[in-house]
Amino acid sequence: MKQKILKILSDSKDYVSGEKLSELCGISRTAIWKHINNLKDEGYEIHSQPRIGYRLIKRPDALLKTEILAGLHTSKWGKEFLYTFEEVDSTNNLAKKFAAEGQPEGTVVVAEQQLQGKGRLGRTWISPKGKGIWVSVILRPNILPTKSPQITFVLAVGMIKALRKILPIKAKIKWPNDILINKQKVAGILTELSAEIERVNYIVFGIGVNVNQDKEEFPIEFRDKATSLKSVLGYEVSRVKVLQAMLEEIEISYNQYLEQGFQIVLDEWKDNSLTLGQQVEVIMDNQKLEGQAVDVDQDGCLIVKDKNNCLHKIIAGDVSLRGHGGKYV
Amino acid sequence: MKQKILKILSDSKDYVSGEKLSELCGISRTAIWKHINNLKDEGYEIHSQPRIGYRLIKRPDALLKTEILAGLHTSKWGKEFLYTFEEVDSTNNLAKKFAAEGQPEGTVVVAEQQLQGKGRLGRTWISPKGKGIWVSVILRPNILPTKSPQITFVLAVGMIKALRKILPIKAKIKWPNDILINKQKVAGILTELSAEIERVNYIVFGIGVNVNQDKEEFPIEFRDKATSLKSVLGYEVSRVKVLQAMLEEIEISYNQYLEQGFQIVLDEWKDNSLTLGQQVEVIMDNQKLEGQAVDVDQDGCLIVKDKNNCLHKIIAGDVSLRGHGGKYV
Repeated sequence: MKQKILKILSDSKDYVSGEKLSELCGISRTAIWKHINNLKDEGYEIHSQPRIGYRLIKRPDALLKTEILAGLHTSKWGKEFLYTFEEVDSTNNLAKKFAAEGQPEGTVVVAEQQLQGKGRLGRTWISPKGKGIWVSVILRPNILPTKSPQITFVLAVGMIKALRKILPIKAKIKWPNDILINKQKVAGILTELSAEIERVNYIVFGIGVNVNQDKEEFPIEFRDKATSLKSVLGYEVSRVKVLQAMLEEIEISYNQYLEQGFQIVLDEWKDNSLTLGQQVEVIMDNQKLEGQAVDVDQDGCLIVKDKNNCLHKIIAGDVSLRGHGGKYV
Repeated sequence: MKQKILKILSDSKDYVSGEKLSELCGISRTAIWKHINNLKDEGYEIHSQPRIGYRLIKRPDALLKTEILAGLHTSKWGKEFLYTFEEVDSTNNLAKKFAAEGQPEGTVVVAEQQLQGKGRLGRTWISPKGKGIWVSVILRPNILPTKSPQITFVLAVGMIKALRKILPIKAKIKWPNDILINKQKVAGILTELSAEIERVNYIVFGIGVNVNQDKEEFPIEFRDKATSLKSVLGYEVSRVKVLQAMLEEIEISYNQYLEQGFQIVLDEWKDNSLTLGQQVEVIMDNQKLEGQAVDVDQDGCLIVKDKNNCLHKIIAGDVSLRGHGGKYV
């Protein structure tokens, strides 16, 4: 109902009377008044003029259900099952819990703040309140578990397209799934799998996007390596619009992958790769490998050619790219 | 303490006085008396002779913690974290819950009965009360998720060895992980994985063993395909002893795999395979393939040669073996 009232107010350029709202929504004027107050509490600026009506002045840039749903053009994701929270331990953990309870593909979990945001390999992902997008989505693809690393590539490609669609920036992908602008990390993806040997129970992916942090809000040790959309563009960016674009574009990439296979996604990934063609240093377990990143194969493994022209297939590891002066960053 | 009292009574061939028990255990005679009554309630037959003491006559064949721990010779599994239940929905589901909460490798969950026992691919595993072993174990191997199908082979090999160790029967493995005696299924293994792309969070495996069912206790549609240890041997088998042997032998196979790699396990698997060398019919998705099962590769895939000598790599599917008269069973 709140969603409906909001839509009527959004669509109108002028004041809408309480009587008209009551008529269109089929509820009493008192009920309308209550919903309006509720919207105000959530951060919507709504003018009420006695005997004239209500007018929407400004929407909040909060990750509210009403805001996300207004203008969300996905085919399925987030439309039926969208959970928004002020604060969670980790959106991935919560989405995994929902998935284990049977929630369907396309269920979306968003939070204003993560208290224990997770990165790859058990690392911490810093997720301050109101500054970024911390979102997780449940997938239930009918693929073999051994194919699930491909999903990460699907997500990275969708993410790149989403940013390009709404912002004048060109982000790139660092293998396997970091999203970088000017060689600094703006978003990270964590894909988690629950499976039997022969079938996927569910996949939950989480994406953290640094949106409106100022540079000095990052911990000192990350300032060289991390950035935010605001830092790059010089102005605040609507988190709601970024989230909507993400869900839309990643859903498209995912459906394309399920229908047409991995090759198209992989080609797009390569087109947007920051890693391929570069001199890289790879740390895996306690080994170090230097060489040129020459390709990514059907399993999503990075192929690195060392100085003896031997090819190495990298399944997991931390990759550094050679920066200016030959130093790896 | 109950464990200690039980051990003292077990080790003694004669009556043990309440005074001596009290002294050895460092608790009052009243406390001893309470523990004895508790043991009786659990099914232990204990004679009490006034002024002489207590004597253990018969242990119950119940999957009690005291019974399982008495004589469990694992290095770690089940020793610290062993959970026994009268009834659960599914031991795998419960073990997954425990694993998500951080319980360590070697945590064991056993139940007398599963209300929603699970087989592969979402199938039901019938788990009647007191008739079988329904057990799950948490593993946390430091392997790549893509290697996890190998674990299933480790489990099957350990299972075969456990049965051979304590019973005069020769069980065989049907690809990938069914345990058969006389071509009838006596045990099944369900392996479930929780992982990031690059690392395993945990693996939970569940094994169901038909132990003391009579043939007519199986649903009619399974009577040709399933059997129990009792049906094969003609006498009741101690479930506790089978469970102990399973935990011991599977733990050994698992540690050997982690230390020495997959090849030894794979060779042992092949030595005990019912599938290799046989004419088979494979159903996968909606396709059917007939041919000879010629090998299993490093990924655990079954290699089937069709009549045109083409090799097919089977990752997942249902395999039937050709029985007498050319019919697949």
